[in-house]
Amino acid sequence: MKLNIALLPGDGIGPEVTAESVKALKAIATEFEHTFIFESAPVGAVAIDETGSPLPEKTLELCKNTDAVLFGAIGDPKYDNDPEAPVRPEQGLLKLRKSLGLFANIRPVKAYDSLLDASPLKEEKIAGTDISIYRELTGGIYFGEKQLSEDGNYASDLCAYSREEIERIAHLAFKAARQRDNKLTLVDKANVLESSRLWRKVVTEMGSQYPDVELDFLFVDNAAMQLILNPGQFDVILTENMFGDIISDEASVIGGSIGLLASASVGEQFALFEPIHGSFPQGKGKGIANPIASILSAAMMLDHFNLTEEAQRIRDAVDKSLELDITTPDLNKNGNRISTRQVGDFIEDFI
Amino acid sequence: MKLNIALLPGDGIGPEVTAESVKALKAIATEFEHTFIFESAPVGAVAIDETGSPLPEKTLELCKNTDAVLFGAIGDPKYDNDPEAPVRPEQGLLKLRKSLGLFANIRPVKAYDSLLDASPLKEEKIAGTDISIYRELTGGIYFGEKQLSEDGNYASDLCAYSREEIERIAHLAFKAARQRDNKLTLVDKANVLESSRLWRKVVTEMGSQYPDVELDFLFVDNAAMQLILNPGQFDVILTENMFGDIISDEASVIGGSIGLLASASVGEQFALFEPIHGSFPQGKGKGIANPIASILSAAMMLDHFNLTEEAQRIRDAVDKSLELDITTPDLNKNGNRISTRQVGDFIEDFI
Ligand SMILES: CC(C)[C@H](C(=O)O)[C@@H](O)C(=O)O
Ligand SMILES: CC(C)[C@H](C(=O)O)[C@@H](O)C(=O)O
Repeated sequence: MKLNIALLPGDGIGPEVTAESVKALKAIATEFEHTFIFESAPVGAVAIDETGSPLPEKTLELCKNTDAVLFGAIGDPKYDNDPEAPVRPEQGLLKLRKSLGLFANIRPVKAYDSLLDASPLKEEKIAGTDISIYRELTGGIYFGEKQLSEDGNYASDLCAYSREEIERIAHLAFKAARQRDNKLTLVDKANVLESSRLWRKVVTEMGSQYPDVELDFLFVDNAAMQLILNPGQFDVILTENMFGDIISDEASVIGGSIGLLASASVGEQFALFEPIHGSFPQGKGKGIANPIASILSAAMMLDHFNLTEEAQRIRDAVDKSLELDITTPDLNKNGNRISTRQVGDFIEDFI
Repeated sequence: MKLNIALLPGDGIGPEVTAESVKALKAIATEFEHTFIFESAPVGAVAIDETGSPLPEKTLELCKNTDAVLFGAIGDPKYDNDPEAPVRPEQGLLKLRKSLGLFANIRPVKAYDSLLDASPLKEEKIAGTDISIYRELTGGIYFGEKQLSEDGNYASDLCAYSREEIERIAHLAFKAARQRDNKLTLVDKANVLESSRLWRKVVTEMGSQYPDVELDFLFVDNAAMQLILNPGQFDVILTENMFGDIISDEASVIGGSIGLLASASVGEQFALFEPIHGSFPQGKGKGIANPIASILSAAMMLDHFNLTEEAQRIRDAVDKSLELDITTPDLNKNGNRISTRQVGDFIEDFI
C-alpha cells in the first residue's frame, strides 16, 4: 500500500515524539513492503513564529492532499496568560479540525497490567479498564458564536448542536460498541441544557436501530465521579465537545501515564492521529518525552487503513517495551535513564 | 442567638439526612442556649407531585423570610430520561439559587486520615488534601438563553458572563485564600472560550488587590487531570458554573465518601446549605444514607453566623464518629449495620 502522510509535529515535545513514530512507520513499511511518503509542515506556535498564522494555508493544503495526518502537539505558555493575544496556537488545531471535518475524536483508555502501580488509582479499581471515548469535535461551544462587548465587560459563547451533528458521531459510537462490549453511555447535562436534551433525544431514538447495544445515560458531573470510582463499568462513552475534552483528559490518568494515550480524529474524508498529551514545553529537548502515545497514534492510523497486522506489530513492540521497562522516566521503574530516542530505537528494532 | 431556619428536605434520601441535621442543631441550641426555629417546605419532585411546581411560591417565600436554608437533595429518575418533561425537579433548585441570588457555591474537599483507605486513590496521593472550591452558581450556561428550533432538530445554550458576576465571587475566593494557604487557582478554558478569557482578565486584574495571594491558572481539562494526579497542590479553586459542577463532583471522590461533603451557597442576602450528594433514590427509606454531609452542612451554617465554637462542636462529633467507626455502610469498616439514625443519635449525644 502507498500512503502519503502529512507530519505536523508542532510545538514543545511534539517534534521529538513524532520523529519516533516516523521511525516506527518506516520500519513497518520496510517489513511489510509498503510505501509511506512523509511530508512535514508547521502548525501551532512554531507556525505563528514562522508565518504569523497558527495554521498556514500551505499546511492545510498539504493535509487535504495526503491520506492521513500525524500530529504532534501544540501550545506554548507565552500565549496562555495573555487573554488578548490576537493569535493563539490552539486556533491552528481548531481550524484544522473544522477544515478537515474531523467530527469524531476517538480516545481509547486502557489500564496496562504492567503499569497498574503507576496509576494514582488503587489497582483493584482500575484493573481491566478498557474504555473508548467518542468525543464530538467540530461543534458545540468550541465553534459557536463568540461575543465580547465593546467595553470588554461582557463575554459569551454559544453551545449549539444540530441533529445531524449528533447522528453522525453517534452512529460511529454505536458501531464501535458493537465491535466491543455492546454498551454505550451518553454523557450529557440533560437536566440543565437544551442542547443536552437534544443529544439525549436523538441518541435515544437511534437506539432502536442498534437494539443489541445497551444504551445508558449519565450526567457529566456524575460521570466525572464514576470514571474514578468505577471505570470498569464503561465500554463506549459518547459525549459532546466540551464535556469530552474534560472527561477524556480525566480518564487519561487512569492508566498511569498520559504518555501512552493515542487518539484518532476522523471525518467523512480525512483523518488525523495525535497523542493526547500536550506540548509539555518544560520537557522540550530533554529526551524525556514518552514517544509511546505518538507511536500508538501511528498504530491507530494503520488500523484506519485496515493494516491490522501492521498495527498489531507496533502494539506488540510497545507491550514488549513496557514489559522490559524500556521506558522514559515518567514510567521507568528501575531508575534507568532511557531517552525518547532509545524507546523509539527499541520499537524500531522489534518491528 | 435566634435563627429561623427553612428546611427543604426534598427528594430521595434528602428527608432522612436532613432529619439528623435538625437533631444536631437542636442539641447545639440546647447546649449553647440558642433558639433555632425550623419550618419545612416542599421542593423538587415531591413539590411537583404536591403542587405541580418544583419550587412552589410558598416555599420561596419561606426561604426569603428565614435566616438560612437547610437543603436536602432533589431529583427523581422518573424525570431524568424524559427530555420532554415539562417540569423537572432540578428547575426548583436552579430557580431557588437564582431567586435568592446565591452566586457562590463553596465546597470544601478534605481527605480524612481515618478514611484514606476508602478512597479510590492511593493514600500517598491524597493524604493532606484540603481544597476549597468556589463555583459560580447563578450565571454561565445554566442561566443563559436556551433555544430549541420549531422542528426540534437544533438546540442551543448560551454561556455568558459579566465582569460584575466574576468579581463578586472572585473577591470571596481571594479572601478565602487569605484565610487559608494564600493560593488561588482559576480553572477556565481561556484557550477556547471568550467567556473564559473574560474570567482570566478580570481575575488577573483583581490579583493586584490581593498581592499576598499567589494566583495561577489551569485549563479545565488539565485541572480534571491534576485533581487526581496531585490534589495536594490546590488550596482555593475558583471557577465558573458548569466547570465547577464537573470539577467539584470529581473532587468529591478524593476523600473516599461523597457522604461526607457539605456545601454552602451564599449571596448578598441569603445563604443555603446542602450536602453535595444527590437524592440517591435507590437508597431512600433504607436507613443507609450517610447523614454526615448534611450535618456538616449545618456546621457550615453555624460558621456563617459566626457560631464557630458551635460549628466546631459538630465537627468534633463527626470526627469522633469516624474515628469510632460509627458510620453508615458506605464507610463502615467492621461490617456493623449502623443506620442513618444511629449515626445522628451518636452525634446528638456527643454534642
Ligand atoms: C488545545 C485545545 C484547544 C484542545 C481542546 O480543547 O480540544 C486540547 O485540549 C485537546 O483536547 O485536543
Ligand atoms: C441538580 C443539578 C441541577 C445541580 C447542578 O448541576 O448544579 C447539581 O448537580 C449540583 O451540583 O448541585
